[in-house]
Amino acid sequence: MALYEGPVQNLIDELGRLPGVGPKSAQRIAFYLLKAAPEDAKRLAQSIVDAKDRVSWCRRCFNIAEGELCAFCKDERRDATLLCIVEEPRDIVAIERTAEFRGRYHVLQGAISPIEGVGPDQLRVKELLHRISGEGVEEIILATNPNIEGEATAMYLARLLKPAGIRVTRIASGLPVGGDLEYADEVTLGRAFEGRREVDA
Amino acid sequence: MALYEGPVQNLIDELGRLPGVGPKSAQRIAFYLLKAAPEDAKRLAQSIVDAKDRVSWCRRCFNIAEGELCAFCKDERRDATLLCIVEEPRDIVAIERTAEFRGRYHVLQGAISPIEGVGPDQLRVKELLHRISGEGVEEIILATNPNIEGEATAMYLARLLKPAGIRVTRIASGLPVGGDLEYADEVTLGRAFEGRREVDA
Repeated sequence: MALYEGPVQNLIDELGRLPGVGPKSAQRIAFYLLKAAPEDAKRLAQSIVDAKDRVSWCRRCFNIAEGELCAFCKDERRDATLLCIVEEPRDIVAIERTAEFRGRYHVLQGAISPIEGVGPDQLRVKELLHRISGEGVEEIILATNPNIEGEATAMYLARLLKPAGIRVTRIASGLPVGGDLEYADEVTLGRAFEGRREVDA
Repeated sequence: MALYEGPVQNLIDELGRLPGVGPKSAQRIAFYLLKAAPEDAKRLAQSIVDAKDRVSWCRRCFNIAEGELCAFCKDERRDATLLCIVEEPRDIVAIERTAEFRGRYHVLQGAISPIEGVGPDQLRVKELLHRISGEGVEEIILATNPNIEGEATAMYLARLLKPAGIRVTRIASGLPVGGDLEYADEVTLGRAFEGRREVDA
C-alpha cells in the first residue's frame, strides 16, 4: 500500500504499530485525523507527549505514577498489611472498581512466559521481596490473570513466598456472575466445581 | 474511570475519540504507549503533527495531497476523459489496487445523508461541475458506496449530470468473487440478478 504519499503513509505505519490496530483501522484513523480540525489532531499528539514526559513508574509498587509514588502508595489509609499482586497497572483499575480491596498493590509488569522469554528476572519480583521484608505485609493476594502465564506466575510466587511465613492467597476462578452453565467452557466449569464452598443456610 | 491520574486519563480520553477505538482499546493503547520506548511514542505524536502540517486537499479533485495537486492530478498519463467519483480518498486506494482504472478522480468528501444533515452543498459537487465543463470529461463513473447514502448520492449526481450530455455509469453491484450464493444477503443477490449479463461463449 505505497499508494499514499510520505506523511500519510508514515502516519498509517505508526498507527498500525499500536495494539489492536490493524492496517484497515490504521488507515481509517489516519483519514479521520486528516479530516479532523488541526487543534483536535494536535491535542492527541500533545497528550501522547505529555503522558510520556510526566508519567513514570511508582518507585515502590511499579504502578503508573506522576512523581515518585502512585496514588495508592501515597494514600496512608490503605491497609499496608494486605498486598495484592497484579500483572499490569490496568488490573488495579479493574480491582478498584469492585471496591472489595483496601490494601496496597504490587505490579509485576508482566507474567512469566517461557515462549516470550519472560522469566522472574524480567518482572518486578526482586522488588516485591524487598517490600515484604520492610512493610509488615501479612497477606499476599495473587491476582495475576487466570490464564497459563498468570497461573504459572502465581504458582512461582506462591512457592517463593510460602517459606517466609506469610499467608498467600489466590483470587477465585469460576463461573462469571450472570453467566450460563451451558455456555461455560469446561475448564472454567471444572474450576467452579473445584472451588465450591459450603452454603450458609 | 477517573481512577487514572491527569495525563494518563487525558491520553485515554483523546485516544477514545478515534473511530473504532472504544474505552477498552483506548486504555490498552495508552498503557502500550506508557510502556513503549519514549522515542517510539514520540514518533507517533510527530507523525500526527507532520501529517496535519504537510498534507491538505488536492485543489482539483480533493484527494489528499502534499502541495497543490495530488499524485493522480499531477500524472499527465492519466486519462482526463474518464472521471471516477468517490466518497473518500481511501476509496481511491481501493480502486488503484484493482489496476482497472486509468482515469482521474473526484472526491466528494462524503455522501448525501439527510439523517446526518449532509446535502449536496456539504459535498464537493459544485467543484465537480466546474471540472466537467473545463476538462473534456467524456464519461463519469459513479463509484460511491453501494449503501443507502452512496446510492442516493449516485442517483442525485446521475440526474444532475445527464442533461450535460456526458455518459454517466455506475459500478456494478453483485456477488463478491469467491463468495457463496447461500450466504449472500437477498439485496445483493437481487442486484446480481438485476445486473446479469449475456455470457460470451
